[in-house]
Amino acid sequence: MREVAERAGVALSSVSRVLSDHPDVSRVMRERVQVAVEELGYKPDLLAQSLRRRETRSIGFGVGDISNQVFAEIVKGAETTLREAGYALLVTNSLGDPDLDATHVRLFEQRRTDGLILSLAREDHQPTIAAIEAIDTPIVLVDRELPISIPVSRVLSDHATGMHAAVGHLLDLGHRRIGLILGQPIRPTNERRSAFEEAHASRGIQPGPVISGGFSVDFGVQATRELLDSELLTALIAGGNQLMLGALTVISERNLQIGRDISFLGCDDIAITSLYRPPIAVIRRDNEAIGRAAAELLLCRLRDGAIDTDIVLPTEFLLRPSCSPPSSAKKLSHLGNM
Amino acid sequence: MREVAERAGVALSSVSRVLSDHPDVSRVMRERVQVAVEELGYKPDLLAQSLRRRETRSIGFGVGDISNQVFAEIVKGAETTLREAGYALLVTNSLGDPDLDATHVRLFEQRRTDGLILSLAREDHQPTIAAIEAIDTPIVLVDRELPISIPVSRVLSDHATGMHAAVGHLLDLGHRRIGLILGQPIRPTNERRSAFEEAHASRGIQPGPVISGGFSVDFGVQATRELLDSELLTALIAGGNQLMLGALTVISERNLQIGRDISFLGCDDIAITSLYRPPIAVIRRDNEAIGRAAAELLLCRLRDGAIDTDIVLPTEFLLRPSCSPPSSAKKLSHLGNM
Repeated sequence: MREVAERAGVALSSVSRVLSDHPDVSRVMRERVQVAVEELGYKPDLLAQSLRRRETRSIGFGVGDISNQVFAEIVKGAETTLREAGYALLVTNSLGDPDLDATHVRLFEQRRTDGLILSLAREDHQPTIAAIEAIDTPIVLVDRELPISIPVSRVLSDHATGMHAAVGHLLDLGHRRIGLILGQPIRPTNERRSAFEEAHASRGIQPGPVISGGFSVDFGVQATRELLDSELLTALIAGGNQLMLGALTVISERNLQIGRDISFLGCDDIAITSLYRPPIAVIRRDNEAIGRAAAELLLCRLRDGAIDTDIVLPTEFLLRPSCSPPSSAKKLSHLGNM
Repeated sequence: MREVAERAGVALSSVSRVLSDHPDVSRVMRERVQVAVEELGYKPDLLAQSLRRRETRSIGFGVGDISNQVFAEIVKGAETTLREAGYALLVTNSLGDPDLDATHVRLFEQRRTDGLILSLAREDHQPTIAAIEAIDTPIVLVDRELPISIPVSRVLSDHATGMHAAVGHLLDLGHRRIGLILGQPIRPTNERRSAFEEAHASRGIQPGPVISGGFSVDFGVQATRELLDSELLTALIAGGNQLMLGALTVISERNLQIGRDISFLGCDDIAITSLYRPPIAVIRRDNEAIGRAAAELLLCRLRDGAIDTDIVLPTEFLLRPSCSPPSSAKKLSHLGNM
């Protein structure tokens, strides 16, 4: 850095200010220093800087499963925003195991990440809550409600609006036996369930059967089989993108024609939905925007020490030909027991 | 650490050996230290350790696009293996921009990552090659061939075997006009093209048209339109999972029935393929295994200073109903110009 200062003909403190992106630096000064940095091939040692500044310019992101398209898009949005702000993103996968969530929070703390973005497997897991309460790092939760005593920022999806519109549409088409498959009882699940019930109640209609368990493809398969075996459904809603894949597997193996034998819609506009025949209606949201918002909330905290806050992002119902008026419920029941 | 040593009644150096996972530690010693660590709630400061040891226990992974299911599964495999070995994974997205690849290599170096896993956008991008040659960090390339002067380890997919089997199957069904859509000319593309040509040549058949450009959905749309407009194709192969999505979009908008009007197969067994009607044949590989192998190669280098080496993982052709004997090529041409 001393060489850079000599080359640029400026004070050492000016070099330091330019390299740390200090706001009180003139454009001319910045350019002079940058030219000298480039000519000398100077590379700042970020690790030594970290120790001096007590910051690592790294953010930990604990996700459920990066190979799930929704998580992957959220991570992509967060990574892009954070990288542009000079932060690196550390990613861990809990694979749905809440013990791993707790482990990763502690691991991120040991690595002195400057902030955490967390999409936790559960909301009631005591070791995870204890780990979060024990650390002194800004946290942004993605779509979770935790019974914790410390403030955190949150990016929430307004699942209710999309679900309400979707159920309303099916009811308007004449469906009276709509099944719903849900993941474990965390915020997205709870919101979807309430909106499903409210959309029925607001029309004075008794809601159809709901099965809640987990967000996996396997649970989607199991729950769809259970619902089709036991109920005269005319429509089915999958409350999660992996659940949707499981439901489609069973619908396919039972030779049910979507849009004719059964109406179907899912959550999140993953690649398969628009290409499926017929194309599948979905409750969609902008996942990359969720990731960007989570990153922005963290950056606000880190830069300005802003107080923690919530951002709520919309969902919307995207109508596609997988939803149509119900035909004969009897026929369905017959097919369902094949 | 001194308190831990006192509590456990062992020497400070023993605590250090246990905490650094030194192999010459007895089970009894390890347990005594671990009990003391837990009783005292001792948390090692990984950042300070990093400076002492000149290692950060972090690995940088530069991928094209984490929201692509194939990349996401590779990252998941690598992250799981590295985490179990005590390493954190930093992830960056190049979004297909080779300049970002070069930037990320330099960024990882500044952050003193102990190793890099790279899935680069291009193989001939001079700034990226220069950045790689300038750093002194073990590197594992994922399915790329770089004209570089330094040794690197590589995890390669044997694309040829799967493509050879797929093309052979279509030729055996009677197809003589098979189109192929490919990404930019990097190793997977080159391997797929050669195997496509060789499978034809080994039967004395002239290969069908090949369009190569990029791996995006948009390019898949554009290339499929071009091929269907200009050629009497009876079969189409998409040489990439995003290209497959683009091809399916065009096939759908032209009302072509897969398996009847045109045979179709793709690369990589993403979620849509088994659920599509008819299910889509693919050349598949185990993406998580690729990520695990990349992590293992890096860990070998870091632990034992092993020399750089290549691992080649298989691909296989998975037959599904999207491939059938050709019907009338004339009819296809008519439909293609609708």
